[in-house]
Amino acid sequence: MWPSLLDQFLSRFLQIGSLRLSMPDGTLHRYGDGTAPEVAVALTDPDLPRRLVLSPDLTLGEAYMDGTLTVGDDDVRGLLTLLLRNLNRPGARRRGWIAALDTLSTAGRRLQQWNPVSRSRRNVAHHYDLSGALYDLFLDEDRQYSCAYFRHPDDTLDQAQRQKKAHIAAKLRLQPGMRVLDIGCGWGGMALTLARDHGAQVLGVTLSEEQHRVATERVRAAGLGDRIEIRLTDYRRVTGRFDRIVSVGMFEHVGLPQYRTYFGKVRELLDQDGIALIHTIGRAAPPAATSAFIRKYIFPGGYVPALSEAMRAVEAQDLWTTDVEIWRLHYAETLRHWEMRVSANADRIVALYDARFLRMWRYYLIASELSFREGRQCVFQIQLAPRVATVPLTRDYLYPAKDVVPGQQELAAE
Amino acid sequence: MWPSLLDQFLSRFLQIGSLRLSMPDGTLHRYGDGTAPEVAVALTDPDLPRRLVLSPDLTLGEAYMDGTLTVGDDDVRGLLTLLLRNLNRPGARRRGWIAALDTLSTAGRRLQQWNPVSRSRRNVAHHYDLSGALYDLFLDEDRQYSCAYFRHPDDTLDQAQRQKKAHIAAKLRLQPGMRVLDIGCGWGGMALTLARDHGAQVLGVTLSEEQHRVATERVRAAGLGDRIEIRLTDYRRVTGRFDRIVSVGMFEHVGLPQYRTYFGKVRELLDQDGIALIHTIGRAAPPAATSAFIRKYIFPGGYVPALSEAMRAVEAQDLWTTDVEIWRLHYAETLRHWEMRVSANADRIVALYDARFLRMWRYYLIASELSFREGRQCVFQIQLAPRVATVPLTRDYLYPAKDVVPGQQELAAE
Repeated sequence: MWPSLLDQFLSRFLQIGSLRLSMPDGTLHRYGDGTAPEVAVALTDPDLPRRLVLSPDLTLGEAYMDGTLTVGDDDVRGLLTLLLRNLNRPGARRRGWIAALDTLSTAGRRLQQWNPVSRSRRNVAHHYDLSGALYDLFLDEDRQYSCAYFRHPDDTLDQAQRQKKAHIAAKLRLQPGMRVLDIGCGWGGMALTLARDHGAQVLGVTLSEEQHRVATERVRAAGLGDRIEIRLTDYRRVTGRFDRIVSVGMFEHVGLPQYRTYFGKVRELLDQDGIALIHTIGRAAPPAATSAFIRKYIFPGGYVPALSEAMRAVEAQDLWTTDVEIWRLHYAETLRHWEMRVSANADRIVALYDARFLRMWRYYLIASELSFREGRQCVFQIQLAPRVATVPLTRDYLYPAKDVVPGQQELAAE
Repeated sequence: MWPSLLDQFLSRFLQIGSLRLSMPDGTLHRYGDGTAPEVAVALTDPDLPRRLVLSPDLTLGEAYMDGTLTVGDDDVRGLLTLLLRNLNRPGARRRGWIAALDTLSTAGRRLQQWNPVSRSRRNVAHHYDLSGALYDLFLDEDRQYSCAYFRHPDDTLDQAQRQKKAHIAAKLRLQPGMRVLDIGCGWGGMALTLARDHGAQVLGVTLSEEQHRVATERVRAAGLGDRIEIRLTDYRRVTGRFDRIVSVGMFEHVGLPQYRTYFGKVRELLDQDGIALIHTIGRAAPPAATSAFIRKYIFPGGYVPALSEAMRAVEAQDLWTTDVEIWRLHYAETLRHWEMRVSANADRIVALYDARFLRMWRYYLIASELSFREGRQCVFQIQLAPRVATVPLTRDYLYPAKDVVPGQQELAAE
């Protein structure tokens, strides 16, 4: 019954591209119109057709990770591209099984995202306390674990990450001595840049013990202990006033029910003449639940906002939204770079963990890349200020007259 | 009873600045802390205290217009600044009478904004079919009746309006021969610019007979009849496909219940490789009703959106939001220029209409200016595209390397 149901679903769903599917009983099925991408998939566990019918999104990732679903030439990108193009083709009906393939039902979403301080710490440890050696194997030299900014298509990853930090620094309009709060400071790269290149006094907060340890050590090694403090705490426990607040790749973990708390805290901590810059993955489509696979294995408690959801929470505060930049495809490029590095270092990652972990990590990076390339994901940079005219009235200040990479001016002046 | 109630309300409300109020019975009252702005108001109609208690926002404008409420030195800007600063002071309670002073209750908002094609035409005639002679007396040379773009504080109005059109044209990334739809084309200035400077084929639609007549005549006079058609119709009745859609200062008239219809129509009319630019007044605060005075006398059926409201309707469509620019204070400057021109031409406006009309118009312009300067109003430019990469992946294209005024390049090349 289950193989036959799966066969029916796939026949209706796969209209473009080509899929060759080998069922657990060895029978071979073909779907699609014969065009590229052409992908071969083999199922070896007899229970997989049932699981793929009942919970396609989660099962796909789990079975690939477990090695019970294999893809010809290990072409996961081809397989996910094929599925996403069929999901996104005009006239595709996003109901029933097809909707479940895209994302899990939204039922229970609020509860899953109920992130009090204690649970937030657990969710963060799940991902960010992984061995630092892993992140060294695929991130850039500064361990920026968020979307890079490709000003030109052939920028290197290191260059694009430097450009990201410089673009954010420009939006913050820093002056030497300003007090900056970095909410979700990661391994300290942004804090180091803002302190070293702009003379800022930075408090970076993270919930990850591993990030806290590494960032603190980097600050010490850079001799910037008098300008940077890294604190292992929840942003909701921070007190005081800051001239600038920056938060890169942290809002994704906040969860919809806490959006008002988040922006309320940003407002409370921000000086009346302050500027804040929130950089987050976003969704250019109606609100929807996070992928079941990503939620279970990669980011428990996470939620990707539609712009309307983030703005509704901002509007409840005494804050001006002074700019919204929407980065499309920059994260697809970033993730492609990361995945290439993971593949180049496959042996070392297997030695660190095992082959199953390597497959999980590649699946996560490729699925994420395609959610930006073929799906509706993007990045929002939301700039906020309590006063109407703290930020200049045109965006000319962000785009210097000569075509220099922002940030190099400061470096050259040293 | 009513004068005493009004006195109580004002005593509680007016904490900063100074108000000297002469009641209809001649008694003099003082409110505030003695600081600037210092304003003197006289009420001459015995019914005004009652009306100001029951419906402060509407009554204030009506009584000033009728001449039963006078302001010392005719300083309406001072009076409204005083009221808005007290409304916006930290800790001010926006309840009861104070909330009513700010805006009318939101009750019945949906019905008031029910704008079918027939009613839209009536609402538009109310405002835009006023004598062209009036608009000539306060708008710029091109009759741009929307927010100008002040790249430098001392730009003239004409210059700032040219910069607005050039900035929008840059966001549209026009190529010669492209079919452009201008929803709410006004007196044709944008259509003329896009056809003349960028070689576009423009269809402009308006519901105002006066605008249609003037715009058609201007197209004929410019010899651009082969490139521009001005049509007297509702945008919902337009069919076909356009490479670009531009809509400047029209979305304010759409009304919240029609937002999905509006963006659905934009999506339907936009080519798959198209770009749309929606320019609208917005509200950097939670959704709220439009001022009672503005709604009754100036723009029946209008509604100023919060960004979350506009975005929610966009997200329901198969569209990428590729940029959101938020103009603060540009409209305050624009309105200040308009009001200065109205005041300079006061005699001619009284001759066209009467003194009551002049007062109504000045009150409208000043109240609007202050809603941008002291209140939470701004302008949103929302750029939309069906495909992820039609618009370049950085905003560098909008900010040319040399500090030239965009648009002058094209003019210089002629």
